[in-house]
Amino acid sequence: MAKKIIGIDLGGTSIKLAIVTQQGDIQQKWSIPTNILDGGAHIVPDMIASIKHKIALLNLTTEDFLGIGMGSPGVVNRENGTVTGAYNLGWKETQKIKEPIEKELGLPFFIDNDANVAALGEQWVGAGSNNPDVVFITLGTGVGGGIIADGNLIHGVAGAGGEIGHMTVDFDEPFACTCGKKGCLETVASATGIVNLARRYSERFAGESQLKERIDNAEDVSAKMVMDLAKEGDHLAVIVYEHFAEYLGMACADIAALLNPATIVIGGGVSAAGEFLLTGVQKYFNQHTFPQVRETTKLDLAKLSNDAGVIGAASLVTK
Amino acid sequence: MAKKIIGIDLGGTSIKLAIVTQQGDIQQKWSIPTNILDGGAHIVPDMIASIKHKIALLNLTTEDFLGIGMGSPGVVNRENGTVTGAYNLGWKETQKIKEPIEKELGLPFFIDNDANVAALGEQWVGAGSNNPDVVFITLGTGVGGGIIADGNLIHGVAGAGGEIGHMTVDFDEPFACTCGKKGCLETVASATGIVNLARRYSERFAGESQLKERIDNAEDVSAKMVMDLAKEGDHLAVIVYEHFAEYLGMACADIAALLNPATIVIGGGVSAAGEFLLTGVQKYFNQHTFPQVRETTKLDLAKLSNDAGVIGAASLVTK
Repeated sequence: MAKKIIGIDLGGTSIKLAIVTQQGDIQQKWSIPTNILDGGAHIVPDMIASIKHKIALLNLTTEDFLGIGMGSPGVVNRENGTVTGAYNLGWKETQKIKEPIEKELGLPFFIDNDANVAALGEQWVGAGSNNPDVVFITLGTGVGGGIIADGNLIHGVAGAGGEIGHMTVDFDEPFACTCGKKGCLETVASATGIVNLARRYSERFAGESQLKERIDNAEDVSAKMVMDLAKEGDHLAVIVYEHFAEYLGMACADIAALLNPATIVIGGGVSAAGEFLLTGVQKYFNQHTFPQVRETTKLDLAKLSNDAGVIGAASLVTK
Repeated sequence: MAKKIIGIDLGGTSIKLAIVTQQGDIQQKWSIPTNILDGGAHIVPDMIASIKHKIALLNLTTEDFLGIGMGSPGVVNRENGTVTGAYNLGWKETQKIKEPIEKELGLPFFIDNDANVAALGEQWVGAGSNNPDVVFITLGTGVGGGIIADGNLIHGVAGAGGEIGHMTVDFDEPFACTCGKKGCLETVASATGIVNLARRYSERFAGESQLKERIDNAEDVSAKMVMDLAKEGDHLAVIVYEHFAEYLGMACADIAALLNPATIVIGGGVSAAGEFLLTGVQKYFNQHTFPQVRETTKLDLAKLSNDAGVIGAASLVTK
């Protein structure tokens, strides 16, 4: 029987785990809560215990596995198998992961950051269809990404490659970004960014709009609400949607001019707006690309949803 | 004795040739005129004859060589070894190159487009210092480029990767680009682009300026002239220089956010402005990058000048 791989997607709330085939199919998946108490000291032991337990339960042994791959928040040192600055896990200092896991489980361990690992998942068996040139953009609380070019995940000289959220796209009245600069894609295309835009264009908007009423009444506004109202034709929401789509479409166009990937895959919570979102982004992408790129680089929605992480993590073992 | 490589840089005026070591040192270089008569039918035979002649002259045989690499204008089919649409060579139809060269010279032949090949040269033994992550931008009549990421030249799905000149950077009163869209880096950062900017800001400028006088008197204006006047403090030329530097610095910042290369190498005729050019671009690069990228991606001037093409072409044989 062909050996399997264990994929781990470490998040601030839960740790997702899966047994994945060498073809990228999930055979088993489960999750455990992320225990961030005691400076996150329980996280790695909890993972090890859960994997041991699951292997035993399935009447398997480590001999049935090729290795373990993991995606993690924070700054990942791939060679040493450590993570630094993953504050939402309680890890204040550099945390060893590869060493205890390899020692306890006796399997080779590979790690990369969570956005890169999700990109690998989508590239391998998701919207990327295993093409060697795929870019993944995730629109969540922030905007993250991962770039696979000529079959390789691109890390760059200091591991900062794929920071798509910090491309500069807004020159209107650019919002300050948490990274220290202004006008980043993240400030206008993340869930928070869409709310930023709603507030900005609300101030300049005089017509009728449910969205404007909510903002003027200091009611809660979310990215989902803006997208839903835009679908219904709410005037202010449509303005926000168009600007969002232009910023993201332009960023995709610049990515395509540089890398001409087969597919730019858009995922993350905001992408739940689906085809409606894609149609808008495609319109501006078309305006800002020249024919050769426009005709060969496709925009698509992510297909694996929450499974991208564990599948991409597993792929680290064989790539 | 270690085998050598033959590098060819095919241009519209001359064909540059060189014998290059496996370490990227040029041992011999020479050139022949590009004969574009008869639909460019003489180009490939001329190259073959010149190589045969040089090898004989040096008392060498094809046994002393590993292979031949070439950079060409036009759309290159790397697998078939053909070039399409290189109109400045007189080649209207798809031109076979690999087949006649391999048949006549009995050496393996590799080809890529001229900007990619120059990028490889600078990455290998030029300003890139053989780092696996280097981006090359050439500022000439147009703006071209080449991307080496994780050690691989990035072509993308349809070979349009590295089209840095067609990133959209100008949202002011964007100029139309030959590619069919507007606001491309090429329209504001090439030699032609700098003259475009001089005319645009001249219209809005009321003070004293030699550059403005030249424009108002319908005298010739060149990019070199603008740069030279900017160095001397000519008010309009400084405005043009600052805008040029901001557009290019921003494009470099976006490239760095995506790829975090060790070095972005700036070459081509416009880069003759040297450190003065680099200082301006660096200023805006710093404004548009976040610390991790700003501190690890370096901007530098190309070091190989006209030799980048033959050296990079040679590297195709061993990479």
